[in-house]
Amino acid sequence: MTDLSAIVSEIAAEMAAAPDRGTPASYIPPLASVDPARFGIAVIEADGTAHVAGDGDMPFSIQSISKVFSLTLALGAVGDQLWTRVGREPSGSAFNSIVQLETEHGIPRNPFINAGAIVTSDILLGRNAPREAIGEMLRFVRALAGDEAIFIDETVARAEQDTGYRNMALANYMRAFGNLHHPAEHVLGVYFHHCALAMSCRQLALAGRYLMAGGINPETGRSIVSAQRARRINALMLTCGHYDGSGEFAFRVGLPGKSGVGGGILAVAPGIASIAVWSPGLNERGNSQLGTLALERLVARTGWSIFEPRG
Amino acid sequence: MTDLSAIVSEIAAEMAAAPDRGTPASYIPPLASVDPARFGIAVIEADGTAHVAGDGDMPFSIQSISKVFSLTLALGAVGDQLWTRVGREPSGSAFNSIVQLETEHGIPRNPFINAGAIVTSDILLGRNAPREAIGEMLRFVRALAGDEAIFIDETVARAEQDTGYRNMALANYMRAFGNLHHPAEHVLGVYFHHCALAMSCRQLALAGRYLMAGGINPETGRSIVSAQRARRINALMLTCGHYDGSGEFAFRVGLPGKSGVGGGILAVAPGIASIAVWSPGLNERGNSQLGTLALERLVARTGWSIFEPRG
Amino acid sequence: MTDLSAIVSEIAAEMAAAPDRGTPASYIPPLASVDPARFGIAVIEADGTAHVAGDGDMPFSIQSISKVFSLTLALGAVGDQLWTRVGREPSGSAFNSIVQLETEHGIPRNPFINAGAIVTSDILLGRNAPREAIGEMLRFVRALAGDEAIFIDETVARAEQDTGYRNMALANYMRAFGNLHHPAEHVLGVYFHHCALAMSCRQLALAGRYLMAGGINPETGRSIVSAQRARRINALMLTCGHYDGSGEFAFRVGLPGKSGVGGGILAVAPGIASIAVWSPGLNERGNSQLGTLALERLVARTGWSIFEPRG
Amino acid sequence: MTDLSAIVSEIAAEMAAAPDRGTPASYIPPLASVDPARFGIAVIEADGTAHVAGDGDMPFSIQSISKVFSLTLALGAVGDQLWTRVGREPSGSAFNSIVQLETEHGIPRNPFINAGAIVTSDILLGRNAPREAIGEMLRFVRALAGDEAIFIDETVARAEQDTGYRNMALANYMRAFGNLHHPAEHVLGVYFHHCALAMSCRQLALAGRYLMAGGINPETGRSIVSAQRARRINALMLTCGHYDGSGEFAFRVGLPGKSGVGGGILAVAPGIASIAVWSPGLNERGNSQLGTLALERLVARTGWSIFEPRG
Repeated sequence: MTDLSAIVSEIAAEMAAAPDRGTPASYIPPLASVDPARFGIAVIEADGTAHVAGDGDMPFSIQSISKVFSLTLALGAVGDQLWTRVGREPSGSAFNSIVQLETEHGIPRNPFINAGAIVTSDILLGRNAPREAIGEMLRFVRALAGDEAIFIDETVARAEQDTGYRNMALANYMRAFGNLHHPAEHVLGVYFHHCALAMSCRQLALAGRYLMAGGINPETGRSIVSAQRARRINALMLTCGHYDGSGEFAFRVGLPGKSGVGGGILAVAPGIASIAVWSPGLNERGNSQLGTLALERLVARTGWSIFEPRG
Repeated sequence: MTDLSAIVSEIAAEMAAAPDRGTPASYIPPLASVDPARFGIAVIEADGTAHVAGDGDMPFSIQSISKVFSLTLALGAVGDQLWTRVGREPSGSAFNSIVQLETEHGIPRNPFINAGAIVTSDILLGRNAPREAIGEMLRFVRALAGDEAIFIDETVARAEQDTGYRNMALANYMRAFGNLHHPAEHVLGVYFHHCALAMSCRQLALAGRYLMAGGINPETGRSIVSAQRARRINALMLTCGHYDGSGEFAFRVGLPGKSGVGGGILAVAPGIASIAVWSPGLNERGNSQLGTLALERLVARTGWSIFEPRG
Repeated sequence: MTDLSAIVSEIAAEMAAAPDRGTPASYIPPLASVDPARFGIAVIEADGTAHVAGDGDMPFSIQSISKVFSLTLALGAVGDQLWTRVGREPSGSAFNSIVQLETEHGIPRNPFINAGAIVTSDILLGRNAPREAIGEMLRFVRALAGDEAIFIDETVARAEQDTGYRNMALANYMRAFGNLHHPAEHVLGVYFHHCALAMSCRQLALAGRYLMAGGINPETGRSIVSAQRARRINALMLTCGHYDGSGEFAFRVGLPGKSGVGGGILAVAPGIASIAVWSPGLNERGNSQLGTLALERLVARTGWSIFEPRG
Repeated sequence: MTDLSAIVSEIAAEMAAAPDRGTPASYIPPLASVDPARFGIAVIEADGTAHVAGDGDMPFSIQSISKVFSLTLALGAVGDQLWTRVGREPSGSAFNSIVQLETEHGIPRNPFINAGAIVTSDILLGRNAPREAIGEMLRFVRALAGDEAIFIDETVARAEQDTGYRNMALANYMRAFGNLHHPAEHVLGVYFHHCALAMSCRQLALAGRYLMAGGINPETGRSIVSAQRARRINALMLTCGHYDGSGEFAFRVGLPGKSGVGGGILAVAPGIASIAVWSPGLNERGNSQLGTLALERLVARTGWSIFEPRG
């Protein structure tokens, strides 16, 4: 057993015993009913070695983590002209705030707040029907992870659609500014299905390898995005990946990362490892309480922070 | 001549010839009168090798770059309890916005917007007179750079004080919330003198070495801050160092950096180099137009981005 | 010919010749295509005497003026508990702003901004189908005016529905806060049909008589609302009836009034007259340019301002 | 004893017994220490008849009510060009909010929020020393009331100055936009002394007679302002006189009125009466709880609402 393997197991054990676990999202029943005692972690090294502990093989709802994959696909579809419709700055406000859209004329601050990811979903729709756009996304994520078992949880997608009034407001609001080209219902159909992807930590860390490896899927050697684009997605994850807690995450953890309201976080140590953690309880900023703590400890024990001097 | 030396000279030559140079700050005469044709660069490698080109030895007003040094000093004085008075999140608004202070009860979003640096100046005042707090800061920066020639430009300091109504508003506003302990005039005296530090790119890059080197001044071997604190300051520079253009800087350059309205930028490639660039013309976000471009090219040609896979 | 009749004719003549007429609303074709040369005025005195001049018998789209009538109906349906869902304060922002809804948790500031009128439409839906709620409103306005010729312009209603993304956003946003009880599509169906009421100045001034007459329709003697409620609706018109130009209207004109983006204004001189003016060109606040000017002159020449000493 | 006299006495008795009295302002000791059991009322009829009850002859700190008098003086000094520096719209936010100033470039929304009254104080300074501007204001109010006993409470003025950081912020902020021509300290010296005027309900109602009487002091027959200006000041009081509770006051009371944080309200029934009430406890909007209730009952029993049909 390598040192890293020991560190990962250690952290899983510590998290299993942690008393203060945050509060799971409660806005839809399928998220509210997840057992808060769960904790999973998976670390995939650059050479492919996998370290998985706790509930690291149990699927959970990746929610906003999907925004990394939909952004990657949308950039592939329309290239940098995407940035005429979405900004690249931290928002300074809650993930679902509509205020910024009013003052900035329907252009979301970045692709990782809800409004921004709704625009990327609009781009993914392109000339396709919603069903096809959803299918493309599922195939993309399965290919990234090399795992055909990944699925979309229809119960989650339906629950989102039944209660997603705020997202419906965001979508219509952007349409009023001409920054949504398809009917809000179609766009949100795509959006909610992306967010309803169910993946385990292992699958998620596998899917994130291209961001660790300069845009290449290290298993297949295929280029997913250019090295420059991989760096830029990492930069966006660092500055915007944790909503209005992004500064805090950079400060404590020091890795590009993207969190989801299901309690998962995907983090990347460029050149070293792709990492996924999961624990359903959230902190007051809406990011996984134990997931963040686990990453903070992992980085402290490995020296993987991108702000650390390289050797 | 090493490759790096060639790259630095090349970039200096390209920037000297660049047609679109932005617009120098005009709010005080000493800044407005600086020649927009200037461009300087200095790169100090981990082993101490220095590469300086263009106007890299000409002093300029470092302005907000001083906030990195005053934060370092203030953390030394009061430790992490500083974070009860200043946040760690990107602001999502202009460097001198007062709106955020109203909604967040007088707590500035981070130490690099004006309001945040006014609070760190208040901390530096401690039980000292303004004159002593200013002297301490000057000694600190001289020691970091190993250069006693560094000085405070009194003309700049006075001009700031004569026109600094907005900063006076920010200071009084925070005092109304109890987040300023000394009279606004005293605190701003300290603040404006910090910002009026005149340094060359070479001096600035030398002063920034501790952030490249895990908190150690590599010349003297003395610890300036702990390795953890150095990482955290780097993280703050990345997420908040360029006001409401921080996301863009991370996206394009990919290094922790802090800009000043005088046209300077201090950037850090952890373990590799401390870098300073200077060109007075600013872009629409208030950051040096050519300074940013120069750093973008330096990183593209060296692979120093912190979002790049490590080898 | 009485003096008043002369004044009304005079004003109509002045307005017909006015060079600076503002700009008609352009967001839907049926409004954009109205002839900006139009001007109409109707003054109905307490004793029933009518003074109509210019295009005072030509129907136009009353748009937001309908919010006075829908508020009256909704108060009749649920009484003062309406005020738990809608505020009574001027908004300090544009008629279709969504910002205020975020900071005030889905409660619109007053019933005359779009969000507020969407809530009153939701109340009018009650247990009815949209078609019935629309029919009830049409019957109510016809009865107030004593004119069965008043109709809803389906072309306008459809155009609104085709482009009403911002209102769709407002409706969904309030539904996210639980302040909309019916599906947004149904509520907006009602809302857009109210706004699409086509009325002439004469019909509008007739319909507004109950607000001049302490809640009584002076023609029939029937009580429409209590005297207290009539006063209160007048007060709301004065403080909130012209969006973010309400203060200006009170300052210049000094009568309770409600404007619509079709260029109409209904104004009330309590105990004296019910007044309607119409000219399609709007000022920068979205209120009829000549309509406001005409009312200013009418009040100056009659002494009808409510801020004038009573004799 | 007339009916009105009976009504006034009745209301004073009811208010003396009212259980829910609100909470006095606590930000400075001289206001915090006022006895919350106090209630005073004075009604001056157009013919000069005075009805005074309760503590109607006890002086209290008029605070923001002074903004009516300073506006009147400033309009006398510079005329309508005042409106290039101050708006005429309700603010939709708290009396001391700074947010609006940022989005509207240093132009306060109206002369009755703090920022607006600071600008009118700047105008009153003109070419005078602060002491002279304060003296002019005191003479003006004494002349209006016909009572040389009116004084400025220096204890209150000093307490304001010692804690007025937020007003200092507002003043400096406007100076940054060029909308303050004198040093903030001087302007606030004038402002705080105006607010520190101590007057009884009787004195206040006497001082307000010109607003009831078309701009004329009915006692002396001298014109204070033109009839048009008197109407316009009344309109501003109605739309903006109770901060972010102005709509509510118009809704419940229906008279132009201006409140102060000392618990006083000056209200005007044009042509009928000038009214002052005082009770130190404030409601959640910062307006006198019992003062508002007393005026609501007075208007209900007299029919003086300006929204009532004239007959």
